[in-house]
Amino acid sequence: MVYHPGLNLILLERGEVNDSGAVTLRAGRADHLRNVLKVAPGHLVRVGMLDGPRGTGTVGAIAGDAVELRCVFDATVPARPPVDLLLALPRPKVMQRLWAQIAALGVGQILLTNAERVERNYFDTHVLTEECYRPLLIEGLQQARDTRLPGVSIHKQFKVLIEDTLDSLFPAGLRLAAEPAAKVVAGAVVRETSEERVLVAIGPEGGWNEFETALLHAHGFTSAGMGPRTLRSDTACVALLALVHEALAGG
Amino acid sequence: MVYHPGLNLILLERGEVNDSGAVTLRAGRADHLRNVLKVAPGHLVRVGMLDGPRGTGTVGAIAGDAVELRCVFDATVPARPPVDLLLALPRPKVMQRLWAQIAALGVGQILLTNAERVERNYFDTHVLTEECYRPLLIEGLQQARDTRLPGVSIHKQFKVLIEDTLDSLFPAGLRLAAEPAAKVVAGAVVRETSEERVLVAIGPEGGWNEFETALLHAHGFTSAGMGPRTLRSDTACVALLALVHEALAGG
Repeated sequence: MVYHPGLNLILLERGEVNDSGAVTLRAGRADHLRNVLKVAPGHLVRVGMLDGPRGTGTVGAIAGDAVELRCVFDATVPARPPVDLLLALPRPKVMQRLWAQIAALGVGQILLTNAERVERNYFDTHVLTEECYRPLLIEGLQQARDTRLPGVSIHKQFKVLIEDTLDSLFPAGLRLAAEPAAKVVAGAVVRETSEERVLVAIGPEGGWNEFETALLHAHGFTSAGMGPRTLRSDTACVALLALVHEALAGG
Repeated sequence: MVYHPGLNLILLERGEVNDSGAVTLRAGRADHLRNVLKVAPGHLVRVGMLDGPRGTGTVGAIAGDAVELRCVFDATVPARPPVDLLLALPRPKVMQRLWAQIAALGVGQILLTNAERVERNYFDTHVLTEECYRPLLIEGLQQARDTRLPGVSIHKQFKVLIEDTLDSLFPAGLRLAAEPAAKVVAGAVVRETSEERVLVAIGPEGGWNEFETALLHAHGFTSAGMGPRTLRSDTACVALLALVHEALAGG
């Protein structure tokens, strides 16, 4: 039997798999199995149920463009990643690139927000539609072998989000606001906390304005930096999520 | 006087600036000064000499598309970033996006290498020409307020690079090979070293093959991971550079 390490995980939707664990794949995932991994009947592949357990799929019949899998799932479901992200909406091209990377790095929920230095028309883009971002999030999960789809919410009023909504979305945990000028670095703050979840806030290019910074501080956010270098918001997003994950894992 | 915080740094080439610190900018940098920052005579902007000191430029005459600056430079030159990168060449679109991010995160030199799982035609792309990557590296330096242009070398023979060339390019320091399966995480290895420089090796999508991994180990590389999640090589690159920098800074 051949285990295909190149394919990190094939995610399945709950409705696709019947009670005995059988699923027939077509198009994208089947093409990948047939053309990239060149699977044959009897081969094993890693599978996962979206928001459910991981497991193993045994390749059955391959007929035309369809590939049958017979899946056995683990008893337990992976934990939701202990990091959430509050991100001032970057321009659409950057946001499109970020979806998969954020899901691969691991976040529980993604809160996209307006800010003074975010252009209003960024909110009208198809990049914020579920049809666009859901497949990109799933791509990131398959890369990272996770099954837990991040929650996504979009907030056009920063003040309402921070004052009225945030406590219900993020009831307990450490709140960090990335600020290039902050003396204390993010990893150090996280290593010292006893909280189990961390919410990381990343501002727009050009930063939060004074009002926004004050509002974050008034609602429990601690400023934390990443050293002396100023990074683009997408680079900062990847870097900070990596630093916070490592620090939470005790690294 | 108005200091423009939005502009992180304007990098100047040595030949552009005359002995009294005067320079006349046109096109890209002048357009940015006039249209984005809307500078006026007397305003101050951050400048830097490529591979030289940082400094301050005072805006002089603005005539047509030209902006004059009178620059005063610091006495000292920023240190070269203490991290180097050995990267199996990713596909051209990904490499194009990485140049500026790598320079912004800070690396002394970038070694691009072949590997079994790198497609040969990746080496034929314009993304590896200096005309393409130099402006992207400078964009990243300006973002991060650095002046030190990373060195770039391209190695089509992995074995020759590791066996014959690497010791002269990287004579002393810690050698890390990113491996998803490694138990020890990169930050922990770096925090324990007394070395002042770190070389981070990142393999292709699909990883180094067995021969390549063995060759790296035989030449002093320690395997280090980034937790249980497998990342795309561009995400891994940004994440690892951030982790190594933070660990080196004592974070």
